[in-house]
Amino acid sequence: MQIVNAFNRQIVIAARPTGDAKLSDFRIIKQAVPSLRDGEVLVRNLLISMDPYQRSLMGNASSELPPIDLGQPMSGPTVAIVEQSRNGNFAIGDHVVSWSGWQQYGVTDGSDLMKVDAGAAPLSTALGVLGHTGLTAWLGVTKFMTPKPGGTFVVTAAAGSVGSVAAQIAKLRGYRVVGIAGGSEKVRYLRDELGLDEAVDYKAPGFQRQLARALPQGLDMLFENVGGSMFEALMPHFNIRAQIVINGTIAQYAHPGVSPGPNRLPELLKLVLYRFIEMRGFALPDHLASYTEFLAEVGPWVSEGGIKYSEDFVDGLENIPAAFLRLFDGRNHGKLIARVG
Amino acid sequence: MQIVNAFNRQIVIAARPTGDAKLSDFRIIKQAVPSLRDGEVLVRNLLISMDPYQRSLMGNASSELPPIDLGQPMSGPTVAIVEQSRNGNFAIGDHVVSWSGWQQYGVTDGSDLMKVDAGAAPLSTALGVLGHTGLTAWLGVTKFMTPKPGGTFVVTAAAGSVGSVAAQIAKLRGYRVVGIAGGSEKVRYLRDELGLDEAVDYKAPGFQRQLARALPQGLDMLFENVGGSMFEALMPHFNIRAQIVINGTIAQYAHPGVSPGPNRLPELLKLVLYRFIEMRGFALPDHLASYTEFLAEVGPWVSEGGIKYSEDFVDGLENIPAAFLRLFDGRNHGKLIARVG
Repeated sequence: MQIVNAFNRQIVIAARPTGDAKLSDFRIIKQAVPSLRDGEVLVRNLLISMDPYQRSLMGNASSELPPIDLGQPMSGPTVAIVEQSRNGNFAIGDHVVSWSGWQQYGVTDGSDLMKVDAGAAPLSTALGVLGHTGLTAWLGVTKFMTPKPGGTFVVTAAAGSVGSVAAQIAKLRGYRVVGIAGGSEKVRYLRDELGLDEAVDYKAPGFQRQLARALPQGLDMLFENVGGSMFEALMPHFNIRAQIVINGTIAQYAHPGVSPGPNRLPELLKLVLYRFIEMRGFALPDHLASYTEFLAEVGPWVSEGGIKYSEDFVDGLENIPAAFLRLFDGRNHGKLIARVG
Repeated sequence: MQIVNAFNRQIVIAARPTGDAKLSDFRIIKQAVPSLRDGEVLVRNLLISMDPYQRSLMGNASSELPPIDLGQPMSGPTVAIVEQSRNGNFAIGDHVVSWSGWQQYGVTDGSDLMKVDAGAAPLSTALGVLGHTGLTAWLGVTKFMTPKPGGTFVVTAAAGSVGSVAAQIAKLRGYRVVGIAGGSEKVRYLRDELGLDEAVDYKAPGFQRQLARALPQGLDMLFENVGGSMFEALMPHFNIRAQIVINGTIAQYAHPGVSPGPNRLPELLKLVLYRFIEMRGFALPDHLASYTEFLAEVGPWVSEGGIKYSEDFVDGLENIPAAFLRLFDGRNHGKLIARVG
């Protein structure tokens, strides 16, 4: 079979940013589409995901993950269609989630591919509410927190792709849910459209006071996506036996190295000790076996409107870098996806 | 029945220390022994426990527990004998563990009392290796860490009453156990008498280097009794999926308030996120139902010598304050108990 466009355009890492990433850290290049070896699959990306953790793949970042080599495309999830296959598990025309990243085409041995039923839900949901994003939210709320009926559940970056799903699952589980987000528009969305009990604008004056007002009974569960000073503002509100999932520290991806004092670590250890706090991170790949259970619970909620999701589309591969940078100043709203098909 | 000594001598909190406690923060007073009401029991203390957390009960401390009123005796566990009883559950002559604290006599409704078989093991073990101390160590190692065969287990204050039991239980579970303690004598004890794989002296020059040498494969489990700079020295050694139990922050009991920078909290959040760390405190009273299971497992180990324990006795109620202060400069060795019977 002939590839219509014999070239593969890629967004590659051109430079390792210090601090925040900028446009000049990316470059768009053209590569020949490689021919397949036995067992391989060629996919053409239709939808490409942009996620905050990708900053940590650019280097000079607060991450344990090795950075991507300069000149190589950003990795990450996409929705793609199989264009060629020398792998018996995948046929031409199959829709899949792949891990081929910011490029038009990907070649893979199939181990990263997961078939998607294009008729069951919009394809974009496979990158968001019904994909890794939703699975992450669901795992955090249901697998790493034991139920506390009537408890107060706080989620930071609550209007974000993971946060908004976590908040709604927590509501469906019967918790009192307080979302934290930046800007009055996001706060309105959380309150009026997602139906959270409280939403607090961290960019507004008097944030600490608003936070205290939203947490009169303290905090029993925290789904943390931000870290940094946001986490420190929440610490005084931790209740006895509070459960904390650290899912992201977006505040710190671009800013590793030494943080100025005071040192808040001794205070956290004291809280863990005297308030019997549980705190954890988790590795999504350890829990992919739960994907079926997740889909069975969350799929119907999504199709019946019990869980709403918001998507923020950008068109064209070449517009990915600029869109990506919006993730870090709070200007995006919902799951950020590039349409490149 | 007539009480031989109609007076009850008590060690009371005379002043709230700022920073480290000192002798003048305690006073010894005489009180009349109260007469019993229905349901009450009068116990005479034989053995009185001294524990680091008691500093936090004196006030001006890094604690969530309310301080003891000035003029009132320090609370805490004792081994006692029932002298009078108007409670059908307890008879004169019964040996019990009580929570009557630093005084000769205690009056209780019996809810804090636990009978002890004086023939099964030395009475003092009911305050230490077979009491709350041992239960705490056992819970931390067996209930709040999932087994990692061959994993490296680190315990701080490893020669202390909880730490030494935790270290030995971890050895019996098949872990590679590294103990941290202060001074060459304690290090020798951990290595030669308790049989730990490595023991590191935090008071010796080159502590960080010795620590790195003792942890060539990093740290999979941490039983933390110290906190402060000790915890910070261990952070770089946390492995992927490390499990951390915060059982004490002895370094901070007397020193609340602001710690100077740099702020190590962002680094810890990053580790929790990227290394999928689990970290927790726990409340002993939540787990007293496990006491029977604990005794069934640890009792035989103690009587057969598989778990050794060390006790540090002081004679006379009046010597408790001076002995207690030794807990904070690392001069005690093993479970600190006053004989007052």
